[in-house]
Amino acid sequence: MVRQARSEATRRRIIDSAIDLINEIGYPAAGLADIIERAELTKGALYYHFDSKEALATTIIEEGATTVLDAFRAAGRSSSPAMENIVHGLFVVTDVLGTDRVAQAAGRLLRTFGGFNPAAKQTYATLLDEMTRLTTSAITEGDLRDDIDPEDASNAIIGALLGAELLSSALADSTDLRVRFGKVWAVMLPALISEDSLGYYREFLARQSLRAPRTPESSTVDGASPAG
Amino acid sequence: MVRQARSEATRRRIIDSAIDLINEIGYPAAGLADIIERAELTKGALYYHFDSKEALATTIIEEGATTVLDAFRAAGRSSSPAMENIVHGLFVVTDVLGTDRVAQAAGRLLRTFGGFNPAAKQTYATLLDEMTRLTTSAITEGDLRDDIDPEDASNAIIGALLGAELLSSALADSTDLRVRFGKVWAVMLPALISEDSLGYYREFLARQSLRAPRTPESSTVDGASPAG
Repeated sequence: MVRQARSEATRRRIIDSAIDLINEIGYPAAGLADIIERAELTKGALYYHFDSKEALATTIIEEGATTVLDAFRAAGRSSSPAMENIVHGLFVVTDVLGTDRVAQAAGRLLRTFGGFNPAAKQTYATLLDEMTRLTTSAITEGDLRDDIDPEDASNAIIGALLGAELLSSALADSTDLRVRFGKVWAVMLPALISEDSLGYYREFLARQSLRAPRTPESSTVDGASPAG
Repeated sequence: MVRQARSEATRRRIIDSAIDLINEIGYPAAGLADIIERAELTKGALYYHFDSKEALATTIIEEGATTVLDAFRAAGRSSSPAMENIVHGLFVVTDVLGTDRVAQAAGRLLRTFGGFNPAAKQTYATLLDEMTRLTTSAITEGDLRDDIDPEDASNAIIGALLGAELLSSALADSTDLRVRFGKVWAVMLPALISEDSLGYYREFLARQSLRAPRTPESSTVDGASPAG
């Protein structure tokens, strides 16, 4: 049991070192030798846990995707309209991407690998499915315009988030993602929201945009009061 | 002069081999050894032309970005409304990204490096500037809603393109980019276009979406008749 705990600690140290380097200098520049050096481990220790640099990347993608999806789901309330859960949930996601280093590294790896890595491909598919489920409900509830296909709405919303994340990462080191994505939402709202609900969602969005970014510590409180 | 021509041919062979490998297996998996083998050259020949794998990537980013920007600019007509040039020009860009292997590889590298590579960062900044210039004109011309900040509109439009490119690349090997981006435009139009112009741009978009994708050979003909 002691050996197992030590082995798990070693594995964690490798993952953490890789995450740091990916966030500091990017995945291409982060060589296995750099990761080993940062973790103060031997090549043997790394290869005991991971077959290759990509296997390590896959682990980070899976871990980061779980963090992001869990945060998104936890931010929603079954009693709230689906459209509120979409808007609030995605702001929570921007905060997670801005503060959680695993999620941040996973975001970089998702863009780097895209369709070339099964875990990355699966993450994009899961994000779109999750969003389509919500846009379908939002149409039924009368918030999302009923002349839009729920899958098209999902593609537009997830695409807008991914585009904003890419631009924020490239141009502002991900520091302005919440503000940047808030502006994209403000532009997109009249395209997505039905006439009857537009006034309410403009107000809802303005309140969301004004909120202090969620920190990892405040997640529970925040998740319990999305409209505050 | 013969030597110079031969040197240029070698340089080209390295770049072409790298582009092929990046499109086939992705940048992380494309090692320098693979690129050399594909080009049937020696390590010395590669290092004579490029200091590092990233230097080679930078060259491909610059070349691909020039191809995309030139195609976008050539698709526009000074006599056409700016909003028409935006919609038509971006469809031309989706075609270039779908058919031109340099542009395709550059797109992957832009996502891979983001802010970590100055050429990638500059490309994103240039795209946004170019688009802001056009959205500013489109507001003056009454096509783009005047309650939207031209820079916010630019961010939303470029972000939507980048998001669609990322999803298309990850989920459909970039084969559905034109269709996917057309659907995003259809969703976004009512958010961007003024009430007076909306009917016309719905029609304009429908015609653009129906057009056969531009192939590299047809670019001149196509560039001369964007509204056909």
